[in-house]
Amino acid sequence: MSGWVAVVGLGPGRDDLVTPEVSATLAEATDIIGYIPYVERIAPAAGLTLHPSDNRVELERAELALRLASEGRRVVVVSSGDPGVFAMASAVFEGLEAHPGYMGTEIRVLPGITAMLAAAAAAGAPLGHDFCAINLSDNLKPWSLIEHRLRMAARGDFAMAFYNPRSKSRPHQFGQALDILREECGPKRLIIFARNVSRPDQTIRTVELGEATPEMADMRTVVLVGNAATRRVGPHVYTPRGAE
Amino acid sequence: MSGWVAVVGLGPGRDDLVTPEVSATLAEATDIIGYIPYVERIAPAAGLTLHPSDNRVELERAELALRLASEGRRVVVVSSGDPGVFAMASAVFEGLEAHPGYMGTEIRVLPGITAMLAAAAAAGAPLGHDFCAINLSDNLKPWSLIEHRLRMAARGDFAMAFYNPRSKSRPHQFGQALDILREECGPKRLIIFARNVSRPDQTIRTVELGEATPEMADMRTVVLVGNAATRRVGPHVYTPRGAE
Repeated sequence: MSGWVAVVGLGPGRDDLVTPEVSATLAEATDIIGYIPYVERIAPAAGLTLHPSDNRVELERAELALRLASEGRRVVVVSSGDPGVFAMASAVFEGLEAHPGYMGTEIRVLPGITAMLAAAAAAGAPLGHDFCAINLSDNLKPWSLIEHRLRMAARGDFAMAFYNPRSKSRPHQFGQALDILREECGPKRLIIFARNVSRPDQTIRTVELGEATPEMADMRTVVLVGNAATRRVGPHVYTPRGAE
Repeated sequence: MSGWVAVVGLGPGRDDLVTPEVSATLAEATDIIGYIPYVERIAPAAGLTLHPSDNRVELERAELALRLASEGRRVVVVSSGDPGVFAMASAVFEGLEAHPGYMGTEIRVLPGITAMLAAAAAAGAPLGHDFCAINLSDNLKPWSLIEHRLRMAARGDFAMAFYNPRSKSRPHQFGQALDILREECGPKRLIIFARNVSRPDQTIRTVELGEATPEMADMRTVVLVGNAATRRVGPHVYTPRGAE
């Protein structure tokens, strides 16, 4: 029997946001590979081997997945959210490129509910018009490029979603990002801090950019910024479908 | 019993991409409102009233949903994909703003698998780094703004996803968009035409910008454009996680 790799998205956290496609694929798996907290979401089962690993070993995970599939195993690589948005899908293809001996492996990517869309839904519809998704971590790209992208997104009047806004190892950069946004968008622009989206302790906090501070975000937060037309209606925040 | 409105995403087409959260909410509904082909995806049931409507009556749908909820009905407004991405969620909040008498209505937005992420998964991981989502329809915004956003996105070296790239009523603008992209990104940049994503007749076609023609897209197509690093590996197209 020939093996395969499926790179799947588990959604932002709650089980009823996992697609039936992903659940069915997990039920066929012999091996689950991923970051420890995501593998912990998979129930142990007879004949199923769990391979949890720590952060920042994405390429090792990819190579393990490809090797196991070449041995006939049915391997599911789990990401939170959507695997194609700042998650494991690109890492698996980087691994394939680095190990061309595995080139014939069947690899499928199964989409999931990505954090920014779950956060947007919880807030209302702040991404209801053209928007950008930016990873604010400079682990794999220079900070100068992030600053450039923030300015281009602001000058295009895109709404924005930021992944990995702030971590203990880089506490100061998010403050710089807020400074750039205030400079480009002014102090009245709405910004949403969505923490632990879809989990029991979810919090959604909306403030104006002029009131935003770096401490409002951590690694469990997705940050959304409206465009020039984004506004509140009752308890909701939304971006109109049109623009003048 | 008090009524409510849930604005839900049915995903790109296949039933196993509908989240359990959305399925459970549909099972509680007394009324389903939406564009004809999306309402057709809901099975008729005793006690369930279907309200299919034609395109471009989004605000009428919103008002109907709010009115029915005020009468105690449990109303589900269905969108394809994710309701917060170029779909019904913003229209419902526009309707609420226009009819403040409904301000106390319980309104929830339930996320779904949006077309660009299903298309990206089918192609590999072309949105695996910072990216923009742009609606190419100028029904509700001037074409000049779309051109400006295309240039800002290209100059930020964002990957891009285009919704509504081309329709019978505006056949020429997508060609102009391709011209701008070739000017900004050069002829070798990869572009993906994903048609009828997740359906039995799904097609995924990847070409270089220099070979792309407007006829490759229609209203059933989502178009993805890579960033400067996007490349092929075997049958897949992916964007690496990092940038220099």
